[in-house]
Amino acid sequence: MITNISQEIKDYLEQNQTFLILTHKKPDGDAIGSTIALGKGLKSIGKTVDYYIDMPIEKKLDAFHEIVYFDTHILKEYDAVIMLDCSTYAYAFKPEPMVRFEKMLVIDHHQSNENFGDYNHVEVASATGELIFRLLKQMSIILDDEMIDAIYTSISTDTGSFQFSNVTSQTHEILSQLYYCKNSFAPLSKKLHHEKSFDQMKMFGEAISSISLFENGRIAWIYLDQQTINQYGGMINITDDIANIGVNITGVIIGVTIKQAEDNLYRVSLRSRSPYDIDVSHIAKEHGGGGHQRAAGFSYSGLLSDLKIEIIKFLKEEYELCD
Amino acid sequence: MITNISQEIKDYLEQNQTFLILTHKKPDGDAIGSTIALGKGLKSIGKTVDYYIDMPIEKKLDAFHEIVYFDTHILKEYDAVIMLDCSTYAYAFKPEPMVRFEKMLVIDHHQSNENFGDYNHVEVASATGELIFRLLKQMSIILDDEMIDAIYTSISTDTGSFQFSNVTSQTHEILSQLYYCKNSFAPLSKKLHHEKSFDQMKMFGEAISSISLFENGRIAWIYLDQQTINQYGGMINITDDIANIGVNITGVIIGVTIKQAEDNLYRVSLRSRSPYDIDVSHIAKEHGGGGHQRAAGFSYSGLLSDLKIEIIKFLKEEYELCD
Repeated sequence: MITNISQEIKDYLEQNQTFLILTHKKPDGDAIGSTIALGKGLKSIGKTVDYYIDMPIEKKLDAFHEIVYFDTHILKEYDAVIMLDCSTYAYAFKPEPMVRFEKMLVIDHHQSNENFGDYNHVEVASATGELIFRLLKQMSIILDDEMIDAIYTSISTDTGSFQFSNVTSQTHEILSQLYYCKNSFAPLSKKLHHEKSFDQMKMFGEAISSISLFENGRIAWIYLDQQTINQYGGMINITDDIANIGVNITGVIIGVTIKQAEDNLYRVSLRSRSPYDIDVSHIAKEHGGGGHQRAAGFSYSGLLSDLKIEIIKFLKEEYELCD
Repeated sequence: MITNISQEIKDYLEQNQTFLILTHKKPDGDAIGSTIALGKGLKSIGKTVDYYIDMPIEKKLDAFHEIVYFDTHILKEYDAVIMLDCSTYAYAFKPEPMVRFEKMLVIDHHQSNENFGDYNHVEVASATGELIFRLLKQMSIILDDEMIDAIYTSISTDTGSFQFSNVTSQTHEILSQLYYCKNSFAPLSKKLHHEKSFDQMKMFGEAISSISLFENGRIAWIYLDQQTINQYGGMINITDDIANIGVNITGVIIGVTIKQAEDNLYRVSLRSRSPYDIDVSHIAKEHGGGGHQRAAGFSYSGLLSDLKIEIIKFLKEEYELCD
């Protein structure tokens, strides 16, 4: 179901003059892509737009020229603050103390959004970039090449290159329109989904080398110790896809990835897959972590051997994985 | 540019009764997907359809029910032979001797197609599955769930999940229509693009472990020896994506992957990437192999050390990679 933006929001965007765009902490492709597309769109119709963004930005997203304007200028007061791709105010990355503003507009695609703005344009979609694309079209704003790449980045990253269950007919309809504007997104897509530094690639290989299977191949276990992590440039080079390696193995229903941060301090990522869809957020939340049913994480202080016993026990007890 | 099928081809499909569907050797997702979609489509309007396919079929494609009809029945004569996704007659997988038939129809998306049929519906598109989808629509044939999955498989595999430069606005327009028929392709897409057996995953990890870089990081070199290959289930477990590992590393422009088949017998895969786009098919063809500018391969009998010298020399001399 596509909802057009309300006349109220359209008026708000057209009648205000100074805008500050914010997004969530640790901005991803959708956060950065929708920020750039909307920011440049508003600038193109004569608005003053500033950005305040959590840094650093992931390497794969750093080619956008518009990034030079991020965090370079901030007024004491804005007509309008726009919060993108952020479902709760707590998760927003914002100036401390917050700048003064007239009204806040929230634009987001998460069902869980708390509607914390004065205006809220919240609609379930594959990415906030989908909503921004439709909004710009409705405002008759012409998309330049960088805005087109930004929308592509939003949608492509938040859907795992059009593979996740959040993809809809409308998602592909928008892509169909983007391809009318630009012939090929192949180099951009390669950068977003495949490119790794040598160290990142080697770290990925070490993760695979470490895999062991438990419980008749239903649990995959990946362990990266401090020495290995440091050898390949530290935690920053552990790419997101490492946590998914386990559940990409045939027959595996739980992927556990453990990274040693310090002696007796571990970062744990859990992934769960169909047909069981075990809720891994339970054990994560018990340990002060977070996430959702199929992807969760937490930090653990203690012995690795105890951690392992606890995780296996949790999975066995609660879900009777074993006979 | 979308071309509708001609009235002549439409008549041919509607007026003939017995069909044999063939495709190319070593059938991939597009070959199998377009075969199933067209085969079931013709059956749904009362035609007799047999299939003759090169076996085995890749594991990721083996869930289609229609596969039970492959190679199980073959007549001595058909009204019509349809050759799918195959650019030359030499590359076709066909009965020896060939069955008798009235007329052959070639349906293919490769620009290089030699138009070797009595009728040829050849049009550049992301996949033959695109052409089959439009053909079925034009014939007002209703797609069942398996046909929808088959079309999705064709397009998704031939575009690397909508990432390659062959994707067009029309590709996404078709996907948009497929999503009207089915809510989510996420599990299918995961199977097509991510799932590996434990041995395949370990082999992939070994390939990464073996990477070394030459020529200031412009050439990535992967080597899998016989022992490693056998340890993880043999050549059949070397997945296609291994050949791309090298060029997915930042700064690498040539990826070389060498697999030891026997003592002094090697299979070589070469990949080239922008901005240089070195034509790696030259050296492949010199050694009796094949491929195209950015992806080629050949077999080599001799010493590994000589092979390495020759490849590096080729790359250095012809393209002045080095100073």
